[in-house]
Amino acid sequence: MASVSGFSVSGVHAGLKANGELDMALIFSDNPCAAAGVFTTNLMKAAPVLFDIQQLASNNDDIRAVVVNTKCANACTGEQGLANAREMAQLTANLLGLETAQVLVMSTGVIGTHLPMQKIAHGIELGANTLGQDWDAASRGIMTTDTRPKLASESFDTPSGKVTLTGIAKGAGMIAPNMATLLSVVVTDAVLSPEQTERLLKQSVEPTFNRIVVDGDMSTNDTLLLLANGASGVSIAPNFEAQFADALLKVCRMLAQAIVRDGEGATKFITLHVKGAANDAAAKQIANAIATSPLVKTAFYGGDANWGRIVAAAGRSGVNFGAASVKLRIAAGETLTNDLLLFENEMPTQYSEELATAIVKSPEVYAQLEVGQGVGEAIVYTCDLSHDYVSINGSYRS
Amino acid sequence: MASVSGFSVSGVHAGLKANGELDMALIFSDNPCAAAGVFTTNLMKAAPVLFDIQQLASNNDDIRAVVVNTKCANACTGEQGLANAREMAQLTANLLGLETAQVLVMSTGVIGTHLPMQKIAHGIELGANTLGQDWDAASRGIMTTDTRPKLASESFDTPSGKVTLTGIAKGAGMIAPNMATLLSVVVTDAVLSPEQTERLLKQSVEPTFNRIVVDGDMSTNDTLLLLANGASGVSIAPNFEAQFADALLKVCRMLAQAIVRDGEGATKFITLHVKGAANDAAAKQIANAIATSPLVKTAFYGGDANWGRIVAAAGRSGVNFGAASVKLRIAAGETLTNDLLLFENEMPTQYSEELATAIVKSPEVYAQLEVGQGVGEAIVYTCDLSHDYVSINGSYRS
Repeated sequence: MASVSGFSVSGVHAGLKANGELDMALIFSDNPCAAAGVFTTNLMKAAPVLFDIQQLASNNDDIRAVVVNTKCANACTGEQGLANAREMAQLTANLLGLETAQVLVMSTGVIGTHLPMQKIAHGIELGANTLGQDWDAASRGIMTTDTRPKLASESFDTPSGKVTLTGIAKGAGMIAPNMATLLSVVVTDAVLSPEQTERLLKQSVEPTFNRIVVDGDMSTNDTLLLLANGASGVSIAPNFEAQFADALLKVCRMLAQAIVRDGEGATKFITLHVKGAANDAAAKQIANAIATSPLVKTAFYGGDANWGRIVAAAGRSGVNFGAASVKLRIAAGETLTNDLLLFENEMPTQYSEELATAIVKSPEVYAQLEVGQGVGEAIVYTCDLSHDYVSINGSYRS
Repeated sequence: MASVSGFSVSGVHAGLKANGELDMALIFSDNPCAAAGVFTTNLMKAAPVLFDIQQLASNNDDIRAVVVNTKCANACTGEQGLANAREMAQLTANLLGLETAQVLVMSTGVIGTHLPMQKIAHGIELGANTLGQDWDAASRGIMTTDTRPKLASESFDTPSGKVTLTGIAKGAGMIAPNMATLLSVVVTDAVLSPEQTERLLKQSVEPTFNRIVVDGDMSTNDTLLLLANGASGVSIAPNFEAQFADALLKVCRMLAQAIVRDGEGATKFITLHVKGAANDAAAKQIANAIATSPLVKTAFYGGDANWGRIVAAAGRSGVNFGAASVKLRIAAGETLTNDLLLFENEMPTQYSEELATAIVKSPEVYAQLEVGQGVGEAIVYTCDLSHDYVSINGSYRS
């Protein structure tokens, strides 16, 4: 994974995970960072989310560090939870010679328990003492039920120099409020204003992190941060904004897709493309209804080309469209290549069931639903619903 | 099950199910019935749904028969599907000496295949020849993945005589568009006007059939019919309307709850009671978010008192409320008896984990969430999400 000038990271074992695996991560910047965050819209926001929102409201141009812990979400923890989030930032600031106002925090794990502050303090000390370029360790330090680390990097050249972006994320989707779910940090050495950081982050979230569905649940802790420390000396605005936005989009998409591919119990990566809706929002609503349907997801798991469930889920999405104009195509892979038309004119086509089954049994499936209303479209990435999902979530706390 | 004057029924094996089980049912009334229906709001309405809506629009006071088949939903079947639904009614009318306009039809089963009309015709003939009082056979004749028949009966006395209501239903919930899901017919010998039939049916559906969730999917075929043939001679309006409404509510609630108890793969019956919302609609929206959460449902399956998932699902329901006023209580059974307060003041209480686990491990669990906004409330009945649900729906068509 590409290093980013001026940033150093670490991943450590603070003793939060009983099995000795890495359970905390630290990201440090030599220079002040323009910073922006996107947070869960859940009303039951965890303490670290409330803390970061407050921090960024008063300081979005001089952030220096992000500290992350696993195993405890510090959610539904009241005043004590907020105090612990603040102490976590303060401990980090003390060790790194910063102000508390320069540190952001992230937590993931079980809801409703307090942070074990002694272990957290130990982890921060270990993290501060081992800062370096081991992005793999940092990405492992934020994993929970993830089966593999999630990293992505992009860079591009400008006449004034090279710009690099590197991000890490943990999943597995919007899937587990109990797990505190989606955490991601993307850092760059580009020179960005706080306004740009905020705007570019928001713009890149919609087609990426906001388009992934594992099970439709939304965490109390979801957090995505973008930190720009300017160490490359390359000023982005306005000449290179398009290039930067493109690189940021790629990093976010890679991380978001990695989260779906590693969704709890997932055996398949499914790309749902809804076209011909009245507008993009309507298309997304239809795609989300399909992506969250337990019947659609179990059919994919079973390798059953059960198109009726896709069409029926679209029909109950709350978006109005005419049944007569609906068309459904599927293909193996991530794009509409060698596709099979399954449904049109309110009826199944004379498709080959053997071929349809072969497509649905492949590890990556693309499904395109046209609804014939307009030019709105949306792509949503999702996975199947397996026996393992039930096993993992039926016994998570035990 | 109580017979209802003037109605006769049958359940037969038409050869639709390979295993020889009953697969069609017929309900016949000696007298003209006032009739009303409530149908799926799915845009992809099945042919029998479209047919019945049309029938009732032109005739809601002289319905005489309902014919039902399983194994084929006659959904997503285009013009041919509508012609087949009409032919099914016509065949029934011919054998019973009726007009096609006096017959309603219902279908449940796989989406996207045409009715095997020869078998359907055979079943109708068998059904017409075996009409009697075997309500158990009729209720078995409409089962699909249901593991047991669903019947309910209520009666009450008036000075003018006794009124009886009997209903049958099949599930298993709003759960399987592919299964055509929820079908139910309630018949009564009360004298009702078509306007009363319609109004009383709609009124009884909201707190019963509209409050059950198995997996949040909605069928293309959901249909609930109320037929009143007046054979008791007891005129309901206006003196006995409250009594009748109460009896109808009880029948609908029993049938609706039976569907949840027999939900695909269900091991638990869960009553979710949301109180203190700004209004009843908001309370229902919160309850539905909890009832459809795969994380909540798998935790119940695993016997894990994972209250954080319930609170987090409420937090993402789209309804606004203050986190500080949320309280969560659970109890074994169907009511708030010997309850345990798990969460208040944004924090878990000092509850006994052992006691909480014992409650959640019981076959019936009641959960009450207060959100402190107003006096709106809603009860939603749901079940857990088990390995068997995934098995059943991962391989339904094969």
